[in-house]
Amino acid sequence: MKKIGVADTTFARVDMAGHATRTLERAGTGFRLFRRTVPGIKDLPVACRQLFAQDKVDLCIALGMPGKAEYDKVCAHEASLGLMFTGVLEAKPIIECFVFEGEAADGKELEHLARRRAEEHAQNAYDLLFRPQRLKRHAGEGLRQGFDDAGPVRRSK
Amino acid sequence: MKKIGVADTTFARVDMAGHATRTLERAGTGFRLFRRTVPGIKDLPVACRQLFAQDKVDLCIALGMPGKAEYDKVCAHEASLGLMFTGVLEAKPIIECFVFEGEAADGKELEHLARRRAEEHAQNAYDLLFRPQRLKRHAGEGLRQGFDDAGPVRRSK
Amino acid sequence: MKKIGVADTTFARVDMAGHATRTLERAGTGFRLFRRTVPGIKDLPVACRQLFAQDKVDLCIALGMPGKAEYDKVCAHEASLGLMFTGVLEAKPIIECFVFEGEAADGKELEHLARRRAEEHAQNAYDLLFRPQRLKRHAGEGLRQGFDDAGPVRRSK
Amino acid sequence: MKKIGVADTTFARVDMAGHATRTLERAGTGFRLFRRTVPGIKDLPVACRQLFAQDKVDLCIALGMPGKAEYDKVCAHEASLGLMFTGVLEAKPIIECFVFEGEAADGKELEHLARRRAEEHAQNAYDLLFRPQRLKRHAGEGLRQGFDDAGPVRRSK
Amino acid sequence: MKKIGVADTTFARVDMAGHATRTLERAGTGFRLFRRTVPGIKDLPVACRQLFAQDKVDLCIALGMPGKAEYDKVCAHEASLGLMFTGVLEAKPIIECFVFEGEAADGKELEHLARRRAEEHAQNAYDLLFRPQRLKRHAGEGLRQGFDDAGPVRRSK
Repeated sequence: MKKIGVADTTFARVDMAGHATRTLERAGTGFRLFRRTVPGIKDLPVACRQLFAQDKVDLCIALGMPGKAEYDKVCAHEASLGLMFTGVLEAKPIIECFVFEGEAADGKELEHLARRRAEEHAQNAYDLLFRPQRLKRHAGEGLRQGFDDAGPVRRSK
Repeated sequence: MKKIGVADTTFARVDMAGHATRTLERAGTGFRLFRRTVPGIKDLPVACRQLFAQDKVDLCIALGMPGKAEYDKVCAHEASLGLMFTGVLEAKPIIECFVFEGEAADGKELEHLARRRAEEHAQNAYDLLFRPQRLKRHAGEGLRQGFDDAGPVRRSK
Repeated sequence: MKKIGVADTTFARVDMAGHATRTLERAGTGFRLFRRTVPGIKDLPVACRQLFAQDKVDLCIALGMPGKAEYDKVCAHEASLGLMFTGVLEAKPIIECFVFEGEAADGKELEHLARRRAEEHAQNAYDLLFRPQRLKRHAGEGLRQGFDDAGPVRRSK
Repeated sequence: MKKIGVADTTFARVDMAGHATRTLERAGTGFRLFRRTVPGIKDLPVACRQLFAQDKVDLCIALGMPGKAEYDKVCAHEASLGLMFTGVLEAKPIIECFVFEGEAADGKELEHLARRRAEEHAQNAYDLLFRPQRLKRHAGEGLRQGFDDAGPVRRSK
Repeated sequence: MKKIGVADTTFARVDMAGHATRTLERAGTGFRLFRRTVPGIKDLPVACRQLFAQDKVDLCIALGMPGKAEYDKVCAHEASLGLMFTGVLEAKPIIECFVFEGEAADGKELEHLARRRAEEHAQNAYDLLFRPQRLKRHAGEGLRQGFDDAGPVRRSK
């Protein structure tokens, strides 16, 4: 039985963890979920570290929604470095799923984008743990999360 | 009995630790407070590290007030990375509460903002330690500290 | 028997790992290949860490293709720091091979650049493991990967 | 008997370590000084690490003077991150005292600023080790080093 | 008998390691040299880490020549952080000697600058290991590597 950690924030304006969780549950079985909610994205690295250290999860999904201000980009950068550092220390994957408020034109689009990106990252998380050969099959194919795939430069590999 | 560390600076122009402490004491019981005051925000990571290592606290609140100059933003970024690194190493939360002088138009507004943000971050710190389910209930609801909540994109989750 | 790890992404739009692998196999023998495909470049550091820790590889090649947006540069920077941190922790080389989409004018040029850079970095990886004296012989000669060599400032060393 | 490390550079254009040392000696007794001089600010983190590891100091003062060029700011940022990382690893304070050449209009002002900042940071270092309650008493009072204090937003705390 | 590591790149357009090595040999005796050549500056941190871990050197000189493009500055920054991190982890000095192609107007000037900077950094490396009191004597004197010394603000210390 694998264990998957899901870390999210009260700062985000969409329930991204809900979307990620439902996708994981639709994807298959064989895992247990652990959830931690923290105030903001800069709290996610420690939440993941605790999910690894205390709950012994095999992988984390870290979901967050940085705001529109210039300073929010700095915070996202710091949070990303913290997640990177945590994953490397633990030698376990952390799937970072951030949606910047500025990526969407309005609330509706923001919700759609956040949902789709959370779902597609959750699918990737599932594949990393249970079907790594699926990722290998799609190597170099220009896959995207939240937006349409860019596709490979050449159709025939 | 939990232990909470509070680290603040002589550089800040508002007694943020006082506001944080009073909020914690109003929030509930079951914890002891440890306080360290350092010169500036770049000294906060080591102060937190010592609070964890020597005083055995379970969580730190790191309060600081970067100045208005461009260089102050760099210092805040460095301090944030240091706090992130410390939290991950210790696998314990550090609630960073920074108020940039430039966020407020005048002294009065600065004081109000610093007080409110310190109080709301202190409340989050309390919840992280004692009521994690409260954070979980507000996941994805667009909560903010210091300013009004942005709210969730959709009212009905 | 040496072990070489190859980490690539589904985000990239060219099968860079294929080009790197074929170059390694043409370069010589005496090694086994281990491959991990992850979603994006920010997942490469953990993939390399796992290649070192679980598969016991002696060197990793990390292949990725950041997009054209400003934010993609930030992600590449974070991924690079993660790869650096991983290599230093493990005391083992990670050959980073990134091709930015914006480096090429069109798809054809992008594919050519990605292929050539992957091949030349793979050659470097082989030399680092099996022929370090070859690198020493070319020290200070202005070698480049993907584009033409700049050459040494003075022809006669 | 406490031990204080003083690290400075040959790059700086003012003998900042001299000013810091004299301030420490005027401030009180009960400590021994250890000094290391390195070429530039990017060598300070290792100098501090050696002061902690080899000389067993309880605190370091790291003094440096970045130049005026844009690149000097990058170097200062890297040096600061290195000092932060070192302090956190050692769980011991490093008082960073940097004076940017561009902060002063001419040589005379630069010397004055460097001297005053070195003295005031040295005083802080002394207080951190011997009189932490003095720092606590000045928490949130807008103290500055090198320039006049900004003061608290409200006079009456 | 001390051990000195010299790490350089095939990317650089001047044989900086040659210049550094000759300066070390002219400076004195009592040391053995270890050399590693890697493709680019981002490979230098791991090269130094291996020189420390495998060859047991007491100090490293890391020589590199970032290109003129904006992206080369990012790479240099990442390499510098990696070198800093390595030096702190090992508690041993790494003398970073980078020459940016854009610092010189033409090839001749570039070669002159690279040679002089490599020589002066190598001299610093020698002094750090064998004559630390010489560095201490020049503290705060505005020494530079590659360009003329800036000198102390006041002539009479």
